[in-house]
Amino acid sequence: MPMNVVMLMYPDMTQLDLTGPFEVFSRFPELTLHLAWKTLEPVADISGLRLLPTTTLEACPPADILFVPGGPGQIALMDDAPVLEFLRAQAKGATYVTSVCTGSLVLAAAGLLTGHRATCHWLSLSQLRHFGVEPVNERVVVDGNRVTGGGVTSGIDFALTLAAKLFGEARAKRAQLFMEYDPAPPFIGGSPRSSEAALVTSIRQETAAFQTRREDVARRAAAALPAS
Amino acid sequence: MPMNVVMLMYPDMTQLDLTGPFEVFSRFPELTLHLAWKTLEPVADISGLRLLPTTTLEACPPADILFVPGGPGQIALMDDAPVLEFLRAQAKGATYVTSVCTGSLVLAAAGLLTGHRATCHWLSLSQLRHFGVEPVNERVVVDGNRVTGGGVTSGIDFALTLAAKLFGEARAKRAQLFMEYDPAPPFIGGSPRSSEAALVTSIRQETAAFQTRREDVARRAAAALPAS
Repeated sequence: MPMNVVMLMYPDMTQLDLTGPFEVFSRFPELTLHLAWKTLEPVADISGLRLLPTTTLEACPPADILFVPGGPGQIALMDDAPVLEFLRAQAKGATYVTSVCTGSLVLAAAGLLTGHRATCHWLSLSQLRHFGVEPVNERVVVDGNRVTGGGVTSGIDFALTLAAKLFGEARAKRAQLFMEYDPAPPFIGGSPRSSEAALVTSIRQETAAFQTRREDVARRAAAALPAS
Repeated sequence: MPMNVVMLMYPDMTQLDLTGPFEVFSRFPELTLHLAWKTLEPVADISGLRLLPTTTLEACPPADILFVPGGPGQIALMDDAPVLEFLRAQAKGATYVTSVCTGSLVLAAAGLLTGHRATCHWLSLSQLRHFGVEPVNERVVVDGNRVTGGGVTSGIDFALTLAAKLFGEARAKRAQLFMEYDPAPPFIGGSPRSSEAALVTSIRQETAAFQTRREDVARRAAAALPAS
């Protein structure tokens, strides 16, 4: 059964949030991948990687799977009415509503995670609370048809998890082997649980000003949500 | 010390081979990332993701780190004289000559891995022998200034390993934590070692015709190398 995966893309996203899941999804011929933004012009991620959308928000076909990546550009989307309206409209008919990293904050700002359990990049996880979303400190969180992944690289685990739900474990394992996904990180760490406390603290301090700005925007976006 | 990372891109590459390392490298401000191809037009990966080069082979600055991703489009590069010449010229001044996945076959076709130990996507690993390269069944292989990664997702481990060599373990761990790289694949598997034998066999059979074509091209490219 053919299915449309609608992947939002936007300026200053973190490209691996998108390209990790894209790689996994692209290995299932039933999935047609749509990269949607306001125009068809190239979109530059936060590090300058320029990717081309395949469709606009207006022309985008209806999503079976709706996906939102994260990244610093997420902040600008939190009160971007056309984007939030696009997500709400697409979510109505979608079988799965999904995100990676701070993409969950965008879904939350669209009111699409209220009352759900979800995850986010570890630095921003607690901000989900502003939207009546229960933050879950796990790499991939499945709550009904809401499937969210943690920071950046967790998009690969997220997409394999979703692929297994859609196509069964055997085919997901097959994709995993084609992608040679038997990770061997050179260092222990990579999450606040597994990293040295001093490193976690140092990153929290270094990003404090930026995270405060992100949280202020989240609070404003949450206040703008219609009372449910 | 600023360093140029020259990342070759090409039609029908596997985008995650490139975008995984790009994500890691982009987190080190000393590194300037250059995406090089013959023209500045968008380059479509094997699944249709279109990325924009930042420079051409002609205009590309000299690499401190030279990088080649893999993917089915690798086959066309194996006897592409301008590309092989570009790689040879860039490798001369490079501190590191690197690849992910079947990108190592392109480096080998340029004569840049002869006499070295290297890795490759598991399905194509043995093809390195045609070039006098010792295939090593490991996720990341460091042999002097040649650093190669295995299939697709191993690019993340590859790039973190290289980052640690360049900037030290502390900074590599920091990038790893920012990227929340504490992988938790949903399934055991992802390499021939860890996957069920029946699945490995099934993929080998399914890809046999394509792999024969890839190997024929590798043999031809090896025969075209000047005797050392």
